[in-house]
Amino acid sequence: MFRKLLSLEEARQVIWERFKPKPLGIEEITLLESCGRILAQDVTAQIDIPPFDRSTVDGYAVRARDTFGAEENRPITLKVSGTVQIGELPRITVRKKEAAEIVTGAPLPKGADAIIMIEQTEKNADTVQIYGAVPKNENIMKAGVDMKKGETVLKPAELLGSREVGVLAALGTTRVKVYTVPKVAVLSTGPELIEPGRRLSPGKIYDINAYSISIAVQESGGKPIYLGVFPDHLTDLAKGLKHAIGCADIVVTSGGVSVGPKDIMPKALNSIGKPGVIISGIAIKPGKPTTVAMVHEKLVFSLPGHPTSALLVFHLLVGPIIQRMAGRPHEEDSVVRAVAATRIFSAKGRKTFVMVRLKREKSKRTMAEPVSGGDSGAIMTLAGANGFVEIPQNTQFVDAGEQVQVHLLGKTNK
Amino acid sequence: MFRKLLSLEEARQVIWERFKPKPLGIEEITLLESCGRILAQDVTAQIDIPPFDRSTVDGYAVRARDTFGAEENRPITLKVSGTVQIGELPRITVRKKEAAEIVTGAPLPKGADAIIMIEQTEKNADTVQIYGAVPKNENIMKAGVDMKKGETVLKPAELLGSREVGVLAALGTTRVKVYTVPKVAVLSTGPELIEPGRRLSPGKIYDINAYSISIAVQESGGKPIYLGVFPDHLTDLAKGLKHAIGCADIVVTSGGVSVGPKDIMPKALNSIGKPGVIISGIAIKPGKPTTVAMVHEKLVFSLPGHPTSALLVFHLLVGPIIQRMAGRPHEEDSVVRAVAATRIFSAKGRKTFVMVRLKREKSKRTMAEPVSGGDSGAIMTLAGANGFVEIPQNTQFVDAGEQVQVHLLGKTNK
Repeated sequence: MFRKLLSLEEARQVIWERFKPKPLGIEEITLLESCGRILAQDVTAQIDIPPFDRSTVDGYAVRARDTFGAEENRPITLKVSGTVQIGELPRITVRKKEAAEIVTGAPLPKGADAIIMIEQTEKNADTVQIYGAVPKNENIMKAGVDMKKGETVLKPAELLGSREVGVLAALGTTRVKVYTVPKVAVLSTGPELIEPGRRLSPGKIYDINAYSISIAVQESGGKPIYLGVFPDHLTDLAKGLKHAIGCADIVVTSGGVSVGPKDIMPKALNSIGKPGVIISGIAIKPGKPTTVAMVHEKLVFSLPGHPTSALLVFHLLVGPIIQRMAGRPHEEDSVVRAVAATRIFSAKGRKTFVMVRLKREKSKRTMAEPVSGGDSGAIMTLAGANGFVEIPQNTQFVDAGEQVQVHLLGKTNK
Repeated sequence: MFRKLLSLEEARQVIWERFKPKPLGIEEITLLESCGRILAQDVTAQIDIPPFDRSTVDGYAVRARDTFGAEENRPITLKVSGTVQIGELPRITVRKKEAAEIVTGAPLPKGADAIIMIEQTEKNADTVQIYGAVPKNENIMKAGVDMKKGETVLKPAELLGSREVGVLAALGTTRVKVYTVPKVAVLSTGPELIEPGRRLSPGKIYDINAYSISIAVQESGGKPIYLGVFPDHLTDLAKGLKHAIGCADIVVTSGGVSVGPKDIMPKALNSIGKPGVIISGIAIKPGKPTTVAMVHEKLVFSLPGHPTSALLVFHLLVGPIIQRMAGRPHEEDSVVRAVAATRIFSAKGRKTFVMVRLKREKSKRTMAEPVSGGDSGAIMTLAGANGFVEIPQNTQFVDAGEQVQVHLLGKTNK
């Protein structure tokens, strides 16, 4: 019971070195399904974008030199030789002292090398007055200026949003290769637990973790496989864990890992495959009993049963692994600076995480106020927190008024 | 052509006053589907959480006064009267000078009023040595301390994430009422446009906007109905718009709204219902031709055809309306401070938005560098931008080295 625990950093190192998380596979989906997915291919332009020189304004296609010398008070007259139709190749050629009507987006006709905006012209029957000079290439978007044929325009690991999908659409693409979403089996154990939706019997409480962790899996880019509450019996639990490992890429359990006589999770994990438990306790508070196993090359995270501890350890250890397996770049926590509202004590010899609620003071300082009951597993206090403060292993406390970094807990509208 | 345009603020006011966007409806879904959805109900605790006084540690349930005076060197001996089973109501009562074995989460047995941690005890046959005193209520989580029966624990407009779903699960809930997702019809017009996935014919380009706007709709909390490219013919377009209005809660079109002779969108909008066009041009650059109509009490936003302009105006005007219809609280843009890398000019008499890319200098300053071609509709430059700088209507330019606020363009991993 007094063995040396791994530090959080050591635990991370053991997990990443033994498991080496990486994207699991690639699937092809349609652009409309791709919002928020992670690109798994190079996207190379197969055509120039735009495919031809285009006008960027409504006006007249001209030979630039024909406009030289034109001024507001001294217009130059050109002959209107025709109209460039948008959406087809121009059938006309602009000759010396000629101009062709053109609209935004239409291809530049042969002979022309500039467009003069309609606002700088005045049309009279079959001629047009030009009230200003335009240099060569004015108001023209050259072929290939947006994307050059052969150019790599998007690379793997890009998060697909409106702009990236716009790039794919511009190239005529309607399907895209993305990383598959890792499947994460989620289950709870504990003889006191009843699954939500069932009748609560005396002495029991509703299981929180299988649901809250399933949602945390989605927030990390994984797909949860909700397996609910498992029996607290070694053979049954081992059977259940085998099933979980079989149907998912990674397994997250909660409960059954503290020091009590009934905590059978480590036994069950060791019974189903090699190497079994690779981490047994971490020097953090809360989260000390956290157990990690590898079975049939798959990771099993066994988190403590307290809802706050479970979600915190998920955030610290499990989320980054799921993100990596989903092909997502590592997301640093959003951190805000605040001032400790009270003295915050750490747990001896353990890195301590304290849930806090941010409050804006009149003085414009942001105060970090520890939420009470955070380590007793209360879910309401957790729901009321904005983030957590980390106190290093060898710091006894953070004093009231000291500056702290608050790691924000996901997106929130509080 | 020289009429006074509405300012962006005036346009916003006209839209919100005439349309009054609000959530459209409520649907009930399962907790596992609820990640990222918006709560549409009060959640009231129907039970105390926890439902009974629980032990928060492994140890012995005792009468606190029996432990008074116990010290490390002067233990007190109590009789072990039995074991409290977890997950059921205790059948034993703790009497004077007695202790009952208990594990974390088990209900407090009658008679006991404190728990002493196992670490502070030593068991011998049917007695236990107590090496410290515990005050009343020590290591007990009282019934209702997390949530009190009758208490409102979550309110409408809450974004559902792991913690909020945890609160719902704790109450035994498996279904939750959320706001319905607004349906947004998205279509493009332009005789030069070909839908991605088809063969590109000479003089044509692939439509970007129907895809990029569909994804922007999803990013704002809406469900896009992708309708693709519409014919550039008044009767057909009017028919298409009627269909769009019929199948969606709001319609977003792009193209067909600049000053060219072929721009038929306003005509089509006025032909299908009252009041028709309510905004015709806004004093912004890019985005000046933006047209807004109301038809059969539904909003139609007609954005310019340039992909950059279309996405910018979507961000400024359309996104907030969709968010409101989805029941989401208004999300302010994330803004970072940077220094203009070059002089940035504004357009005379219009609020100007300039796409920029952020660059971290060695001096740790963050520079905002305008991306070239941003207003010529290039999609690559837009994809390469991190955000935009807003230059007020009456400011001629922002000088190189001046501080600017950069509005970040959505979540990005660049």
